[in-house]
Amino acid sequence: MKTKIAVANGDGIGPEIMEAVIKIFEANDVQLEYEFVEMGKSFFDAGHSTGMTEKAKETIENLGILFKGPMETPKGKGVKSINVTARKVWNTYANQRDFRTLNGVNTVFSNAGMQINLTIIRENIEDTYGGIEHMLTNDVAVGRRIITRPGSAQVIRYAFELARRKGLKKLACGHKANIMKLTDGIFLETFYQIAKEYPEIQAYDIIVDDLCMKLVAHPEMFQAIVLTNLQGDIVSDLCAGLVGGLGFAPSANIGDNISIFEAVHGTAPDIAGKGIANPTALLLSGISMLRFLGLTANAASIENALLYTLEQGIHTGDFGNRNTTSVNTQGFADAIIKN
Amino acid sequence: MKTKIAVANGDGIGPEIMEAVIKIFEANDVQLEYEFVEMGKSFFDAGHSTGMTEKAKETIENLGILFKGPMETPKGKGVKSINVTARKVWNTYANQRDFRTLNGVNTVFSNAGMQINLTIIRENIEDTYGGIEHMLTNDVAVGRRIITRPGSAQVIRYAFELARRKGLKKLACGHKANIMKLTDGIFLETFYQIAKEYPEIQAYDIIVDDLCMKLVAHPEMFQAIVLTNLQGDIVSDLCAGLVGGLGFAPSANIGDNISIFEAVHGTAPDIAGKGIANPTALLLSGISMLRFLGLTANAASIENALLYTLEQGIHTGDFGNRNTTSVNTQGFADAIIKN
Ligand SMILES: CC(C)[C@H](C(=O)O)[C@@H](O)C(=O)O
Ligand SMILES: CC(C)[C@H](C(=O)O)[C@@H](O)C(=O)O
Repeated sequence: MKTKIAVANGDGIGPEIMEAVIKIFEANDVQLEYEFVEMGKSFFDAGHSTGMTEKAKETIENLGILFKGPMETPKGKGVKSINVTARKVWNTYANQRDFRTLNGVNTVFSNAGMQINLTIIRENIEDTYGGIEHMLTNDVAVGRRIITRPGSAQVIRYAFELARRKGLKKLACGHKANIMKLTDGIFLETFYQIAKEYPEIQAYDIIVDDLCMKLVAHPEMFQAIVLTNLQGDIVSDLCAGLVGGLGFAPSANIGDNISIFEAVHGTAPDIAGKGIANPTALLLSGISMLRFLGLTANAASIENALLYTLEQGIHTGDFGNRNTTSVNTQGFADAIIKN
Repeated sequence: MKTKIAVANGDGIGPEIMEAVIKIFEANDVQLEYEFVEMGKSFFDAGHSTGMTEKAKETIENLGILFKGPMETPKGKGVKSINVTARKVWNTYANQRDFRTLNGVNTVFSNAGMQINLTIIRENIEDTYGGIEHMLTNDVAVGRRIITRPGSAQVIRYAFELARRKGLKKLACGHKANIMKLTDGIFLETFYQIAKEYPEIQAYDIIVDDLCMKLVAHPEMFQAIVLTNLQGDIVSDLCAGLVGGLGFAPSANIGDNISIFEAVHGTAPDIAGKGIANPTALLLSGISMLRFLGLTANAASIENALLYTLEQGIHTGDFGNRNTTSVNTQGFADAIIKN
């Protein structure tokens, strides 16, 4: 029996990269059924403040899994990003991003022979993402940063479970508890409390500025890092940069009832519709989703095909160098399917 | 007439690297007189809550310039870092750190032939560094993030003045105003307001996560970046990592009445007293201080000697590779003096 998932194409290049990924899935005989839902910038513009229709919301809540392309953030005061709203509405408290050196994707790190393979687990709802701010006077803005023990515990537990599932030896907690002694303090305290239940995993902490210094010099030192929301946002993008950019970084928003697998790069309106966009990030997110759904054989086979294709020097026009072959979205998907 | 400055050796390796730097200054006939002040961890332990004696505080306030070695942060709840206290007490609102590729200091970036030359200007007092936090319940910690227009204006103005003085073409403002719409919002607004007074400098802004992604891939794209306190802290350390670590990063805390030039790396208690510590960061901070005091000829000559020494492959034991010569602190200082 096929599992049914909700799919939102997203804006800009969204539809074409989604089409390519689903084509790859179907060629690999992935047992999924896709229910396309109405969600994205145009639905926001049509008056749906969350960026999705009621029907889309219902479908996603019934199916529990949303696979989504990139979405444009609507402009305007007081308007929230559709991505951030979705995380909050469905309490997807953990954002997981896996970063690894991909052969064929050149960076100063891969060229130096460094093998990066690390996962950032970011708290996805609390922190200054609550958006609670006010002007005390015209000159003084006050924002509130809220961190809770239950909110910290759920993402930290997810991180330890993930580390156990992946067989990792260590898990770091990034924080700035030397300055934010109570807020980051309880996050750190919760980390070491939960760590006791996972004696096989070495739990350690590192101050976030020091972490960033080490990440750009010795990224191969790290296996997995859990952080609060904003620090996790910054460190995630830093790590994306280490492996070639957001075009190569999958993202999963995990909650107890609903999980979202998404491409977090932009919608690239300038190249939308031309069929030349890079579907790698969405495909990597899709592979994570397959693993999450227990479709591990499909996940492994598609992942190998993707890695082999990149290694062969086949890629879309947004990256690569001489001695390699630049193809369009369709051509890239076909090469993966062939492999 | 010699200018008099206050000098605090600092803890751990502080005294020996300070000795090396002053020796280099004297060999270059720098017209400075040094008044050593009582400040550091041991003075905190002796009961001075700010980490300095009243006399030290008075001397520093009279002289207006403090040259300081690294200081250990006292442990304990509610205790503040001596460095952070000093910044606040004297309203040194701008923290300036200059990062550049140093020949002889190997990193993946220098090995890839990238030339980094960028300055981070960080707001040094506001933001969550105010330390205003409370527990709402045992489970909920609330921190306050305060950003003011005057506080933003003084550091942003400093950044534009610096860019003008250095003849830079562009200045970026790093921020997360898409999420912290009011706090980072007024920082960003103030940035563009002040930018109007500096039409020759291209002013642009970049979201901090995107900034970090770009910094680790194309650091040569940036000339100078101004940020709020915590984001600036994180980005500063990231940039230190790009050029070899905190051992190669100078730091200046600039205020209207008092400025502090300091080494921000650790106190390395494990090697303290052995005479093998690396004085480069403190020397670079000292060179910035000489420039600040108008002693530009000394600054240039010492800087050239330092760069040439590193290029020759002479260095302390903490870095370097084969084909280079490892020396102790004294030997390193002597090589610089000779050059
Ligand atoms: C678009 C933006 C609001 C979002 C965030 O800050 O979380 C993005 O940077 C991300 O990481 O998904
Ligand atoms: C020691 C610490 C409190 C300090 C800071 O966060 O400012 C340090 O990281 C720095 O950058 O000088």
